[in-house]
Amino acid sequence: MEKENRTELSELGEFGLIKHLTDQILLQNKSSVKGIGDDAAILRAPEGQSIVVSTDLLVEGIHFDLSYVPLQHLGYKSVVVNLSDICAMNAIPQQITVSIAVSNRFSLEAIETLYSGIYRACEFYGVDLVGGDTSSSKSGLMISVTAIGYAPEEKIATRSGARESELLVVSGDLGGAYLGLQVLEREKKVFLETKGVQPELTGYDYVLERQLKPEARKDIVELLAALDVKPTSMIDVSDGLASEILHLAEQSDVGFDLYEEKIPMSPRTAETADEFNIIRTTCALNGGEDYELLFTIRQSDFDKIKGNPNLTVIGHATHSASGCRLITLNGEPIVLRAQGWDSMK
Amino acid sequence: MEKENRTELSELGEFGLIKHLTDQILLQNKSSVKGIGDDAAILRAPEGQSIVVSTDLLVEGIHFDLSYVPLQHLGYKSVVVNLSDICAMNAIPQQITVSIAVSNRFSLEAIETLYSGIYRACEFYGVDLVGGDTSSSKSGLMISVTAIGYAPEEKIATRSGARESELLVVSGDLGGAYLGLQVLEREKKVFLETKGVQPELTGYDYVLERQLKPEARKDIVELLAALDVKPTSMIDVSDGLASEILHLAEQSDVGFDLYEEKIPMSPRTAETADEFNIIRTTCALNGGEDYELLFTIRQSDFDKIKGNPNLTVIGHATHSASGCRLITLNGEPIVLRAQGWDSMK
Repeated sequence: MEKENRTELSELGEFGLIKHLTDQILLQNKSSVKGIGDDAAILRAPEGQSIVVSTDLLVEGIHFDLSYVPLQHLGYKSVVVNLSDICAMNAIPQQITVSIAVSNRFSLEAIETLYSGIYRACEFYGVDLVGGDTSSSKSGLMISVTAIGYAPEEKIATRSGARESELLVVSGDLGGAYLGLQVLEREKKVFLETKGVQPELTGYDYVLERQLKPEARKDIVELLAALDVKPTSMIDVSDGLASEILHLAEQSDVGFDLYEEKIPMSPRTAETADEFNIIRTTCALNGGEDYELLFTIRQSDFDKIKGNPNLTVIGHATHSASGCRLITLNGEPIVLRAQGWDSMK
Repeated sequence: MEKENRTELSELGEFGLIKHLTDQILLQNKSSVKGIGDDAAILRAPEGQSIVVSTDLLVEGIHFDLSYVPLQHLGYKSVVVNLSDICAMNAIPQQITVSIAVSNRFSLEAIETLYSGIYRACEFYGVDLVGGDTSSSKSGLMISVTAIGYAPEEKIATRSGARESELLVVSGDLGGAYLGLQVLEREKKVFLETKGVQPELTGYDYVLERQLKPEARKDIVELLAALDVKPTSMIDVSDGLASEILHLAEQSDVGFDLYEEKIPMSPRTAETADEFNIIRTTCALNGGEDYELLFTIRQSDFDKIKGNPNLTVIGHATHSASGCRLITLNGEPIVLRAQGWDSMK
């Protein structure tokens, strides 16, 4: 993968590799008592707080394609998608463990690049890498991340707390990550079909960044705390807005009316959707990986969030018998279906 | 893998698979507030206790060979090796997360068998499965387990607390798991070379069980608490006694004298070693995967453990300048080296 330096992983061995990758770590959270180097890490939950744990697996060829995903971005993103799950509980992430299985196709320098992205995410989000494992693999790269966070139990938001008439709110804007993927796949195809043609990625910065370097909305968790708003239910948008709304509806036993005109989308995302002849709303509803937070709040909390540019009210909870409906631009209600991100490809 | 029923994993999809595998779970620990089904699990550490976290990755073709490891045993063992790390901190495991990546070579029934082993371990050890992820893989099976346990901070035993003149103690007996592997590999070879010849495994039950169904010594953690003995340092024997002693020595800045005559070995392990023409002590020193606990105690605690059939004093800590030495049967000191389990193959 590199032209200049290539150190074989076998030169270090398993113990040597993990030591090499992790011996610069300085723990930054008080809750991280002891990190890598013993049989297990030692953590201490902040006084009176509960622990929140989530884990994800990223497999080469399934979740990422190294022909267009730079390793540093992959490292960053593999941390972010886990931190996003912690944020979706209205909790603050403080630790991660990272295990990788890696074939001999990868050099030490490649794995160092992957870890530089992991460390960049740790630094940005104030999270400590406290454990992990490295292994050989017969084929490709596999990354398993577990994230740990904390919150006072009464502040934790699950998927099941939404009640009728509450407002449905989403952070940021939607659809960009999906269109970033479309751009990358188009350029990969052109590159493979016409040798020597370099990918044309200029002008797509926003959607590419949404795909390659998403962020976990820890800032929204902090914003809601500062505004004294406790979400009654919450989920992160990893599989598309439609799918996540259906999860909240099912687990909270409510319905939702979602207003098409309210769905926030960046002008650059909208332009790219038009260029690809994909209906804009479809990108938001069924495209995934935006990692925004979707949540419900009490109507009485509306004044606290009103006008905040990071938050958009896109609908409200209804009686479960009404089901989940998209109210289209011309006022027609249609039944909301989860299509999911994979099935769009 | 099965002759009768074969349901393709693709029939369920990713969400369907995890739901199918986990919808029977009843949480048994008070510390498990909410398990699978939200963005993250919610846990609550027992009052005043610290959290201990460990993670391991098991990769087909690297850590296990499905031609002789039954899937149920693999599931059990993948949990046990992680619980063992928690026990090695003198803590009690209470939760695990399990992520798997699996190729379409495996049927739903095969994955159910794997999970039946996982659940059996959960039940036996009183541990809750609270999270996980499932993914496709391009080749083979990969299992990532994270274990979480708890202990009062003052009871946690790390690798760095051993002091000169303290006693070195090991639980159970050693070398069996390594010889179990030798038996399995021999029979696999015979089977591949002479078609139709069935493997001859009778008479090797003990060493085979040590290899295929090891146990985490949670009982020893409980025993030490009952005897009011706090290990000053501790590690689990996963890579062979020599390697683990060297870890304790390095991280505690001491040396160790280990007495060959004291190393506990089952007569059945010894017989098998003789049959394979492998020096018995070598199996204990460099064979791995016994998952016994190796720890140091103060001399003043000796009376509390004396005569306990589960515990054997095998040596003592010395000044770091003395290094780590094996005192052989005829009284000669030789320098202890880590050879590790892999390098013996």
